[in-house]
Amino acid sequence: MRIALDAMGGDHAPAATVEGAVEAIKKIRGISVILVGNEAVIIKELKKKGYPASKISIKHASQTVGMDESAVAAFRRKKDSSIRVAFELVKSGEADAVVSAGNSGVVMTTALYVLGRIPGVDRPAIATVMPTLKGSFVLIDAGANVDCKPKHMVQFAIMGEAYAKHVFNIKDPKIGLLGIGEEDIKGNELTRVVFKYLKALHKNFIGNVEGKDIFLGDVDVVVCDGFIGNIALKISEGLAEAVTKMLKMEIKKRTSGKLGYLFLKNAFRSFKKKTDYSEYGGAPLLGVTRPCIIGHGRSTGRAIKNAIKVAVELHHKGVVDVITEEFSTRVDRRELVAVSK
Amino acid sequence: MRIALDAMGGDHAPAATVEGAVEAIKKIRGISVILVGNEAVIIKELKKKGYPASKISIKHASQTVGMDESAVAAFRRKKDSSIRVAFELVKSGEADAVVSAGNSGVVMTTALYVLGRIPGVDRPAIATVMPTLKGSFVLIDAGANVDCKPKHMVQFAIMGEAYAKHVFNIKDPKIGLLGIGEEDIKGNELTRVVFKYLKALHKNFIGNVEGKDIFLGDVDVVVCDGFIGNIALKISEGLAEAVTKMLKMEIKKRTSGKLGYLFLKNAFRSFKKKTDYSEYGGAPLLGVTRPCIIGHGRSTGRAIKNAIKVAVELHHKGVVDVITEEFSTRVDRRELVAVSK
Repeated sequence: MRIALDAMGGDHAPAATVEGAVEAIKKIRGISVILVGNEAVIIKELKKKGYPASKISIKHASQTVGMDESAVAAFRRKKDSSIRVAFELVKSGEADAVVSAGNSGVVMTTALYVLGRIPGVDRPAIATVMPTLKGSFVLIDAGANVDCKPKHMVQFAIMGEAYAKHVFNIKDPKIGLLGIGEEDIKGNELTRVVFKYLKALHKNFIGNVEGKDIFLGDVDVVVCDGFIGNIALKISEGLAEAVTKMLKMEIKKRTSGKLGYLFLKNAFRSFKKKTDYSEYGGAPLLGVTRPCIIGHGRSTGRAIKNAIKVAVELHHKGVVDVITEEFSTRVDRRELVAVSK
Repeated sequence: MRIALDAMGGDHAPAATVEGAVEAIKKIRGISVILVGNEAVIIKELKKKGYPASKISIKHASQTVGMDESAVAAFRRKKDSSIRVAFELVKSGEADAVVSAGNSGVVMTTALYVLGRIPGVDRPAIATVMPTLKGSFVLIDAGANVDCKPKHMVQFAIMGEAYAKHVFNIKDPKIGLLGIGEEDIKGNELTRVVFKYLKALHKNFIGNVEGKDIFLGDVDVVVCDGFIGNIALKISEGLAEAVTKMLKMEIKKRTSGKLGYLFLKNAFRSFKKKTDYSEYGGAPLLGVTRPCIIGHGRSTGRAIKNAIKVAVELHHKGVVDVITEEFSTRVDRRELVAVSK
């Protein structure tokens, strides 16, 4: 399997992206990575590493997209950006999946215009994995669509279900709607409508799930619009970090605490692994015609390696095909029209 | 100062409410509590406690509102509920503030209809205090209004500012808009409009704040609609609990961890104090004409005591008067009309 990696994307690129690529080809069997970006810069980074040369190649791209550039403008103007060239490689069949930790707005726009949507999918969505007491759940949409209609969220549920089923091997993923009360009358205008359709369409729909319950591990797919999903994701990230810091501050205040901390170092490390975004690496943009992984802007080499791992899983489990199948068979025209208002 | 406490409200009422009342009159100077609810039941609970009888009285109410009852129906049908009677006591001048950990929808509806809104306030909002690395911030609206217009959120900012200024003694509270990116073009349809008005109206508006940043302690008032606010609040609550549990699980796995935990008990306890909702007790419903505190449904005696403390602060700092003043002077008609669309 061939990965097109945006070597220029992310706060720590190209050092982190090149490091991640080298780690990935060492650890993951049967893959090769095409580093897309400024050739001279990439070669310079690669020279610092030892790696099997047959598994890494470079595709030059003369432009780089900044983290703050507007998505549509950057897509239109920078036709030779590392993001654009990576997607073109997948489109032409020279690569099987794209991984980018660059400007996520530009990555999404490029995915949409270069790869296109799976028939039946109106809005591709980001599916992020979040840790729970028992394992993890999939949050969809984690930020691709800030203003949604009911039908979009119904589609997110179908894509999230396919992802949980095939990548996480959950036989009948339990689907919940992120809300503020368990009853179906609770929610805002949008979620009250979505509730009805999810109830009609999914036998595994368990109703509204509240923020306090999602970390208990009793729901596999949590559906929400991308604005709320992104806020939920960032709050979880920020709070997990803050909580760890607060606890460490409390520990440092006390002599007994400092002593205790020595015993706890491994526990803290293992805990950090569970809540650290870089363990999950990247989140797939589901609903486009090829595997596309969006990495965290702050991606380290480790995060890039894990993002590549997610791309490999998505490819091997045939998630794009499964979603295509779901939308061509199960979700018939009538149902989609019914939720179109 | 006289507090009308809904003795029947909350999952652990009346044991927790009576306990909280007794603790409050012992710890807080110059207050008396009127326990509102089923007299026989309250007397039975009171008999278990020792307390200065002059500071506690009972006001009988023959009905109790369940936690799942619909707000409007319960308000209309149960005219002698403990919630309703507590508000009537404040309206008639027999009490100065209401505290209830009961059905929050019913509490809000009753506050609105019995006490009424401060002139200029279209929608009262819940202001919740959340912990940060440096102290705390005020989240408004934390759940009173699930579908908001821009003008409502502009009003939340004004109320949140008054609360932070007068109760937390922050001279120039920094106001942020909960969003998904720092630039003003980021957000959903609603927040992009709100952003413009907050920028025009508040000199201390610092722009969009992301979920990952709010816990750092650099913003004092975080404005959002009540649907998102409630999700943010519940996620924080759920995650703080989950994170603590995960860490304890990691610790228990290891012999060295168990040993370390003995040293850390106090650190964990002090940390729990920082993140435990019961420390904050309750959240004021700002924008109604008298102090009204909504307690957590799971309130313990300790949480009720702290909710009473919040009511006392609100009363002594004259927050209702400050908000009334703000809306009658600073926010002139033109500005409110401008944001009315």
